[in-house]
Amino acid sequence: MDLLEAIHTQRAVRRFKPDPVPQDAITRVIDSAIRAPSGGNRQHWSFVVIQNPTLRSQVGQLYKAAWDSGDISRFTHDPNPNTARVYKSAQYLAERMGEAPVLIIPCVETGKQGPSFTTGASIYPAVQNLMLAARSLGLGTVITTIHMGREKEIKELIGIPENVATAALVPMGYPASDDAFGPVRRKAASEVIYIDRWG
Amino acid sequence: MDLLEAIHTQRAVRRFKPDPVPQDAITRVIDSAIRAPSGGNRQHWSFVVIQNPTLRSQVGQLYKAAWDSGDISRFTHDPNPNTARVYKSAQYLAERMGEAPVLIIPCVETGKQGPSFTTGASIYPAVQNLMLAARSLGLGTVITTIHMGREKEIKELIGIPENVATAALVPMGYPASDDAFGPVRRKAASEVIYIDRWG
Repeated sequence: MDLLEAIHTQRAVRRFKPDPVPQDAITRVIDSAIRAPSGGNRQHWSFVVIQNPTLRSQVGQLYKAAWDSGDISRFTHDPNPNTARVYKSAQYLAERMGEAPVLIIPCVETGKQGPSFTTGASIYPAVQNLMLAARSLGLGTVITTIHMGREKEIKELIGIPENVATAALVPMGYPASDDAFGPVRRKAASEVIYIDRWG
Repeated sequence: MDLLEAIHTQRAVRRFKPDPVPQDAITRVIDSAIRAPSGGNRQHWSFVVIQNPTLRSQVGQLYKAAWDSGDISRFTHDPNPNTARVYKSAQYLAERMGEAPVLIIPCVETGKQGPSFTTGASIYPAVQNLMLAARSLGLGTVITTIHMGREKEIKELIGIPENVATAALVPMGYPASDDAFGPVRRKAASEVIYIDRWG
């Protein structure tokens, strides 16, 4: 698939068919993830791939608990009608996270001080590569971080060490809908480009 | 360009030709950046594009100061020979950041509490899209966060408001070398994939 086509049609997919994802496809999306840059090319990343139905269900329950205890005021107080649409779709996913055929948890080693904002520069580019590669294989994904509200419990469940942070929870599967991929809703580039100075 | 070709040949480029970058190319890479996901699709991002030579030089001096005051022990104590290679190249860039034809500062609005690790999930995927789109246009980039050591001064210089964080400093230009793009050095995917449980 053409790069720009993948970039311009990579929608957030939150409704999946129950069909299993071939192991080869999982390996391929992670093989794209690890081509991304990381600070000093240290590649302190790991990707936990959860397919076991019991574990998926357990992670899904923790995700739902995190969703339920989260602050949703940013959704309910936003006058933008698209926000309500995103909220409804995110709630749908929160109730069915464990049913996604594959859950991927991208992780990054951080040392004792834990992850900072710029730690993200060493893992989220890899997550974006993963999602673009998935798109090119017809697989839907969405990057979620709501799981952070139950990160401790999820790390215990999976056996993730203390000095490793989870960066996201990415469900992956074939989209339930035929029009899951397509142009994304965004502000125009001209609204967010500043030349030489802010504003 | 094919998606997988872009992903698999997007090397960090730190040596640039002085040739200017067409405005159209700059707009195109940012138009790819903004197709990336962001939390709740809020798109709280901005991209400051610095081409003015005086400003580039000033940002370059601040970057060099941040580099000089940074902790380089992780480079000098790492037995991996690739680390020395990355360090040498990063030092070259630190001394010439201001000479890159374009400096891009991807920013994200954060509110008063400042950015957290997961704030990165709403800006670094966009940076990765930007770098992949640049690759497809023959433009080299590298994601750097060393500037954070002088972020306050850089924000003052550019007029970036307090509630907005800089996520990276991305120099962009045509690579000085003909073999700047190509396969990247990475651990094998099999080393970083865990199935169902850590380890």
